[in-house]
Amino acid sequence: MSTDDVSPTPDRDDADRPVPRVPKGFRDLAAADVTARRKMLNTIAETYERFGFEPLETPALEYVDALGKFLPESDTPAGGVFSLRDDDQRWIALRYDLTAPLSRFFAQNENRLVRPYRRYQIGPVWRQEKPGPGRFREFYQCDFDTVGTDSMVADAEICAVVSTCFEALGIGRGDYILRVNNRKVLNGVLDAIALPKGEVRMTVLRAIDKLDRLGADGVRLLLGKGRMDASGDFTPGAGLAGDQIETVLGYLEAQAEDRVEVCRALRELVGASEVGAEGVREMEEIHHLLDAMDLGPDRVIFDPSVVRGLAYYTGPVVEAVLTIEVEEDGQKRDFGSILGGGRYDDLVERFTGEKIPATGASIGVDRLLAALSALDRLDAGKSQKPVVITIFERDRMADYQRMASDLRSAGIAAELYLGSKGFRQQLKYADKRDSPVAVICGSNEFERGEVTLKDLQLGARLSKEIQDRTEWKEQPAQVSVARDELVAGVRKMLARHQGGAE
Amino acid sequence: MSTDDVSPTPDRDDADRPVPRVPKGFRDLAAADVTARRKMLNTIAETYERFGFEPLETPALEYVDALGKFLPESDTPAGGVFSLRDDDQRWIALRYDLTAPLSRFFAQNENRLVRPYRRYQIGPVWRQEKPGPGRFREFYQCDFDTVGTDSMVADAEICAVVSTCFEALGIGRGDYILRVNNRKVLNGVLDAIALPKGEVRMTVLRAIDKLDRLGADGVRLLLGKGRMDASGDFTPGAGLAGDQIETVLGYLEAQAEDRVEVCRALRELVGASEVGAEGVREMEEIHHLLDAMDLGPDRVIFDPSVVRGLAYYTGPVVEAVLTIEVEEDGQKRDFGSILGGGRYDDLVERFTGEKIPATGASIGVDRLLAALSALDRLDAGKSQKPVVITIFERDRMADYQRMASDLRSAGIAAELYLGSKGFRQQLKYADKRDSPVAVICGSNEFERGEVTLKDLQLGARLSKEIQDRTEWKEQPAQVSVARDELVAGVRKMLARHQGGAE
Repeated sequence: MSTDDVSPTPDRDDADRPVPRVPKGFRDLAAADVTARRKMLNTIAETYERFGFEPLETPALEYVDALGKFLPESDTPAGGVFSLRDDDQRWIALRYDLTAPLSRFFAQNENRLVRPYRRYQIGPVWRQEKPGPGRFREFYQCDFDTVGTDSMVADAEICAVVSTCFEALGIGRGDYILRVNNRKVLNGVLDAIALPKGEVRMTVLRAIDKLDRLGADGVRLLLGKGRMDASGDFTPGAGLAGDQIETVLGYLEAQAEDRVEVCRALRELVGASEVGAEGVREMEEIHHLLDAMDLGPDRVIFDPSVVRGLAYYTGPVVEAVLTIEVEEDGQKRDFGSILGGGRYDDLVERFTGEKIPATGASIGVDRLLAALSALDRLDAGKSQKPVVITIFERDRMADYQRMASDLRSAGIAAELYLGSKGFRQQLKYADKRDSPVAVICGSNEFERGEVTLKDLQLGARLSKEIQDRTEWKEQPAQVSVARDELVAGVRKMLARHQGGAE
Repeated sequence: MSTDDVSPTPDRDDADRPVPRVPKGFRDLAAADVTARRKMLNTIAETYERFGFEPLETPALEYVDALGKFLPESDTPAGGVFSLRDDDQRWIALRYDLTAPLSRFFAQNENRLVRPYRRYQIGPVWRQEKPGPGRFREFYQCDFDTVGTDSMVADAEICAVVSTCFEALGIGRGDYILRVNNRKVLNGVLDAIALPKGEVRMTVLRAIDKLDRLGADGVRLLLGKGRMDASGDFTPGAGLAGDQIETVLGYLEAQAEDRVEVCRALRELVGASEVGAEGVREMEEIHHLLDAMDLGPDRVIFDPSVVRGLAYYTGPVVEAVLTIEVEEDGQKRDFGSILGGGRYDDLVERFTGEKIPATGASIGVDRLLAALSALDRLDAGKSQKPVVITIFERDRMADYQRMASDLRSAGIAAELYLGSKGFRQQLKYADKRDSPVAVICGSNEFERGEVTLKDLQLGARLSKEIQDRTEWKEQPAQVSVARDELVAGVRKMLARHQGGAE
């Protein structure tokens, strides 16, 4: 039911009435989607809490100067944020992620927060970017971070948290892989090829980040003179020399199943660079901690090509991808990276001047939900839909109401049919509601002190041939029970559904 | 931990760094509050679903023309909404309630929604109003509505839903009361005194709405020539004549324990007014339906003084108040109305031109949460806080990590101490985290293949006198178990807490 209102619509119809529509790039989320997402997020929150993270909720709006500007530059009209002036004429904006508010919160409360402070936050963020299929201006994030420690344990735990989450959600071992790298190692390699610090390093970073999409040849061009894409657009390159480029490409290819092997290769590549050596030491430590948590290379690999686009990462970075292949309409579907994170030691410093080490990661809620849906791992919709009590005798409304009331008191979702239509329409309504059972009670039943229960799931196959109520009664899916037995009778019918019997 | 950032703060400190603070009128919500609210809302959502309502989530932002303008006029700078232009230069605004988005959603999807459409929505809304103590610019609402039926069953069910919610949350029968009225009856009374339709009726409505605060004498002035308040501000009155005023006041006082009695009194007051008689008939029908659900006058009364401020109500209106007295600092605390609702048959018509009857109500989430907290009915914070694994041998980090991992796999929240401080500081950290158990493992324990478990709840009383680790060992709250028995030992200690034993 999500509505992708991208095409222009008139603001008013002929009668000067507003046209009902969501703003461009926004959508409504229908019941099944809300329920599925809620269940998924509950599982994730439980996992986060098991690792000692506690919930935090910051406001949707923040002062613009407190948010800072950390969105990637590309395709962000108006800086990518929704901003406005409040009644004091101060600039405020809808948060574009959950990391900037965390940094603000920690800086604001640093004196009374226990360190390290482990928190998680789940909620929508807003970006005024170009909308597209599956790409909305409001989307959920689900972050967990550890602020106030430089221990690699916190970084290694990211992998443990994520793998526990995935497996709790039904994504089996082998169906996903976590890829870990360290920005310090990359910096060490760039030191080793004598590349000056500054903007050119961000250009190299962005080039590397495109390895998946453009391949080694594309990256080679972007590291060198630049690259012309199919549409004729030219992206200027980083201007590296040939041997520099080959060292960087050699670095990107230093992958191996064995994490120790990767560390050995990286140690050579960083040469005499101190920061590079530090990065390799951190990766070695993470490797040992992962081993202690039984997180072998079947779940976590070291991959030098992982850099994550964000400028603020300073140490270990991590991303998670699904390795399981999902076919949709005969095409293999790629869900891309469904989690990204890393260490960012400078964000709180913006406010306080004090360096506060921090690390964390963010699950892309919509991508993960889409993946679970494609993998058929969602148990949404299996919540009990309401029993529908059909109405024959309008002056017995209070009696029907009491039936609904009895069912609800017993924990069974139930509703009265509230329209003015006849019996067949009422059953159609119950069908559209995915109702499992219809309660039928006309004057005969009232006289006999009975109610009739109709198993709608069982009855669905036959419904097309059925013309009137008399015929319905002949179906085996229908039973009459004493009014006192209403709850017990409905329970029995629901149990039949849950058992999966037809 | 909520931060009420109302006083002006400088935007920059001396070093030209942004000052970390939430925008005026906003707040952060700390762990205990997030957890308490989540549990409360889960209970409410379950109840809504049991009555056949399904979840919906609409975007935070809507086109301004789709939202319409239905906020009460008073104290709303800038129209009371946060609005801005999007990149197409269209005006968009943060939703100020959940009813306007529902009307937009229903109008947009009316052809494929089953009628009646029962939905609930839980989420924040935003109002740019004057902030004050306990009054924020971002707050949660929790609405349920039935769209597409004029059946009084839907209105009566509001009472059933609310009373089920309250009782599920631990607000006992007798601790709350639902007050029901009908706008048509008031209109009938105003017909009977020959008051013209139009703005004067809204003035009468606003006057009546102040009965609780100003008493009958205050309302009498506001119905007549006007009223000067203590500060000298003059509010112009509705200009009614003396006998008109007395009829309206008589109407307001037509309260009785017996709902049938109230209906009888109202029938007299509306005289020959057709709409008035219709309103009384609706109330009678609601009375019978309430009876069928065993909702007697101990839970639902008819109260003609209830009008609800919103202009868009067209029929039955309802509000819920707590009758239980809560003392705080020796003062009786009044939580005010914690739910309001009613029938609004014209909101969808704004878009479609077609009249779509609708009715629903909205729980004031923050007020209800405050009430539950004051009544000590919150079970938040009782979720298991993490076991803290203290660190003695930094080169055994992987072993400590494995302990945490073992505990988490067994479903026990656990975390490693990640700072660089000594043992006493680590225990202080565990205390601040409200940790139930500390795991202690130094070189001796590693040699013996053991771990020491410290019951922190039991130990808390004694902690002040304790100077070093040797002394800790002498406390009965501490046991050593084989490393293999770590999970079982912690479980045993946690069970001791849950049993409430000290």
